[in-house]
Amino acid sequence: MALIVQKYGGTSVADAKRIKNVARRVAARHKAGDKLVVVVSAMGDTTDELIELASQVSDHPEARELDVLLSTGEMVTKTLVAMALHSLDVDAVSLTGAQAGLQTDTAHGRARILAVEPARIERELERGRVVIVAGFQGISEELEVTTLGRGASDITPVALAAALKAKQCEIYTDVDGIYSADPRIVPDARRLQDISYEEMLELSSLGANVLHPRAAELGMVYDIPVIVASSFNDEPGTLIHGGVMMEQFNKVRGIASDAHVAKVTLRGVPDRPGIAAAIFEPLAEHHISVDTIVQNTSVERLTDLTFTIASSDLKQATKIVEAAAKQIGATEVLAEDNVGKVSIVGTGIQSAPGYAARMFRTLSDAGINMEMISTSEIRITCIMKATDVEKAVKALHKAFEMEKAEASELS
Amino acid sequence: MALIVQKYGGTSVADAKRIKNVARRVAARHKAGDKLVVVVSAMGDTTDELIELASQVSDHPEARELDVLLSTGEMVTKTLVAMALHSLDVDAVSLTGAQAGLQTDTAHGRARILAVEPARIERELERGRVVIVAGFQGISEELEVTTLGRGASDITPVALAAALKAKQCEIYTDVDGIYSADPRIVPDARRLQDISYEEMLELSSLGANVLHPRAAELGMVYDIPVIVASSFNDEPGTLIHGGVMMEQFNKVRGIASDAHVAKVTLRGVPDRPGIAAAIFEPLAEHHISVDTIVQNTSVERLTDLTFTIASSDLKQATKIVEAAAKQIGATEVLAEDNVGKVSIVGTGIQSAPGYAARMFRTLSDAGINMEMISTSEIRITCIMKATDVEKAVKALHKAFEMEKAEASELS
Repeated sequence: MALIVQKYGGTSVADAKRIKNVARRVAARHKAGDKLVVVVSAMGDTTDELIELASQVSDHPEARELDVLLSTGEMVTKTLVAMALHSLDVDAVSLTGAQAGLQTDTAHGRARILAVEPARIERELERGRVVIVAGFQGISEELEVTTLGRGASDITPVALAAALKAKQCEIYTDVDGIYSADPRIVPDARRLQDISYEEMLELSSLGANVLHPRAAELGMVYDIPVIVASSFNDEPGTLIHGGVMMEQFNKVRGIASDAHVAKVTLRGVPDRPGIAAAIFEPLAEHHISVDTIVQNTSVERLTDLTFTIASSDLKQATKIVEAAAKQIGATEVLAEDNVGKVSIVGTGIQSAPGYAARMFRTLSDAGINMEMISTSEIRITCIMKATDVEKAVKALHKAFEMEKAEASELS
Repeated sequence: MALIVQKYGGTSVADAKRIKNVARRVAARHKAGDKLVVVVSAMGDTTDELIELASQVSDHPEARELDVLLSTGEMVTKTLVAMALHSLDVDAVSLTGAQAGLQTDTAHGRARILAVEPARIERELERGRVVIVAGFQGISEELEVTTLGRGASDITPVALAAALKAKQCEIYTDVDGIYSADPRIVPDARRLQDISYEEMLELSSLGANVLHPRAAELGMVYDIPVIVASSFNDEPGTLIHGGVMMEQFNKVRGIASDAHVAKVTLRGVPDRPGIAAAIFEPLAEHHISVDTIVQNTSVERLTDLTFTIASSDLKQATKIVEAAAKQIGATEVLAEDNVGKVSIVGTGIQSAPGYAARMFRTLSDAGINMEMISTSEIRITCIMKATDVEKAVKALHKAFEMEKAEASELS
C-alpha cells in the first residue's frame, strides 16, 4: 500500500468529461490498493479568464484580492473531482490549500511554501479516503489565501509528497514525458525514460515547460521521485530522480530551446565594484528574471555587460536599466528583441572534453552565428537570432545522435 | 455616519461593467460618510452553471462538496468588487462568509444561520474600510463551508445588519421595488413606497420574488428597516419596516400570483389523529414545501385532503404521498399540475368585512372558478387554473383600485 501524490494539470481537467476521466484513473489506482493524494489545477483557461476579469475592473488589482479570486479556480476543480469519485463509489474528500496545511509566506501572487502541516490529510487517508487538494494555493501566517505564482502549481504536489513521505509524485499533463528536444521542432525527438533532477532543472529553467524548476528543485532537495506523464494515455512517462546512471553519464540528454528571448547590453560600463548590483537589484525588485549574463574583460577600465530576459519583460527592463545606466555612468543601453537560446543538457558534459567543441562546430556548419555563450556544470547555452533556433535544435539533435535509444533502454 | 448594509444581486454584478457600476455606487455612499458593509451574489448565472457542471460529473453531488463549489461564485464577485473599489481609491477588503463570522448549522445546501460573530467586520470598519462580504455562504461548527440554499442570499445582509445594529439594510436588484402586482401582468401596477414586514412576508411567500421570505422574517424579528431598490437607477425603491401606517391599515397593498403550482388530493382519508403527520412528515423530510392545505369536514368518518406545492416538486411528492396513502388507507391520490394561485395581501383585511366578498365577486364576474380558498390574518388566497391567473390579477388590481396613489404618498 504505497502512498502516491498525483497532480493533474489544467488541460487534464478542462471539462466535465476530462474530470470524469481523471476520476476513473484515480479510482483504478485506489482500488489497486494505493493511498492517493490528488492535486488539481484550475479547469483549462480558468485562471487566465479570472485574470482578464480582474483587469476589466481594475488596472492594478490588489494582490490579496487577486489571490482569493484565482484560488477559486482550483476550488471548483477539487470539488468536481471529489464528486466524480463519489459517483464511482470511491470515498473522497476535497481540501483547500489551507485545509491541506500548505503554509506560505505573505508574498501574494508569488508565495513560497514555508511548511506543510499534513495532519488533516493523514487523518483523511487513515479513514480510507482519497484526498483531493486544490493546487497553487496556500495560507499565510496572517491567515490570508495566497497563490504560489503562475505556472507554479507543480510545487504543491512535490511539497505534499515530501511532507507525507510519499513513495513518489506523479505529474499528469498533456504531454507524455520529457523529450530529448521539442517534438514540434524535432519529429524524431525521443521521450526519456529517466532524467536526473539537475538535468531536469536545467531543461525546465531553459524553456522545456513540462515541470516547473521550483518543483524539480524541491524534488531534488527532498529526494522525491517525480514521474511526468500524460493523463490522456497509459504511457509510462519520464522518471525524474536522484540517481545518475553510469550509462547516461557524459551524454547529452536533452536540448532546450526558447525563441522568445530579449537581450539588453550596457556599453561603456565602468569596471568597479557594485556595478552589477546597481543594475540587477532594481530588476529583481520588479520581479524580472535575468537569464544568461555575460561580461567581457574590461578594456581601459570600461566593459560591456549583456544579459537576456524573457521578451515580455523587455519594455519594463529597458526602462529600469536606462535609469541604472545613468547612475553608474554607462555610455549606452542597447535593447534587442527576437533573440533565441538553445542549450544542450547532460550530467558531466562540461567536465568531459569535446561537447562544447562539437556544439560550436555543428552550429557553425549550419551557418548559425552565436551571439553569446554561457555554461554550467551540466549545460552549454548559445544565444542566437530567434529565427535560427529551430535550425539549431535540429542540427544538434542529429549531431549528438539523440534519436537513438539510450543504453539503459536497451537492457 | 450611519452604518448601512447593502446587498447586490446576481444581475447587478453580472459582468465587469456592472461590477464597476456597483463600485461607483458604493464609493459615492462611502465618500458621503456612511460606513458600508456590502454583500454580493455570484455573477449572473454562475450558480446555475456550477450546478450544471456538478451534475455533469455526478448524478448525486455530495452536499459538502457542492457547497464548496457554489461558494466560489460569491468569492469571485467579492474580490472583483473590492478591486473595483480600490481602483476608485476606496479602501476595501473582501471577506468570505466564514471570515465575516456567519456561523451556520451543518445542513449543507440549506444551512441556517446560528450566529453572526461580527468582530472582524467591525475591526475592518474601524479602519475606515468598506467591507465586501460573499453572500449565501457561512461556516458550520465543523468548520466546513455551507450555503444557505438557493434564493436565500438576501438572508446574509439582513443577518449582518441585525448583528452589526446597522441603521438599515438595502437590497439592490434588477427591479426597483415592491409592486402592487406583477408589472408584467398589470401594466399600471404601482411601486409601493413602503410595506410592513408581515405584508412583505405574505407577498414573498406567495411568489413575489423580490425578497426572500426568510429575509423578511429576519428583518421583522430584529426590526431592521429593509429597502428594496434597483442598482440600475436612482429610484427610491420600497421600504419594508415594522410600523403600520394608519392610512394604509385595512387596505389591499399587493397582489401576489404564481402560475406554477401543483395540487395533490387524497381521497377517502380516515378521519383519525396522526393522519396529517403521516402525510406531511415524509414530505418535509424530502424538503418539499407544502403551501395551502385544505381539509373538508368528514362525511362518514372519511375526508378529502388537498394541498398545493411547487410544480417542480409534483413528481417526487406524488410518489411520497402514494406510499403514505397506502399506509393510512386512503382510497385514492389525485395529482394535478397547471394550477395557479392569486392572493390579496394587506394588514387587517381579514378582520375587516368586505374584502373576501369583493375578491370572490370579482373572480366570479371574470368567469374564474375558485378550486380552493385559504386565508391568513392579512391574506386571502384563491387556487384556480393556471391559465386564469393573469386574468384574475388584472381584475383584482382594478377592483381594489390599486393603481391609485396611497394616502401616505399624497401628503
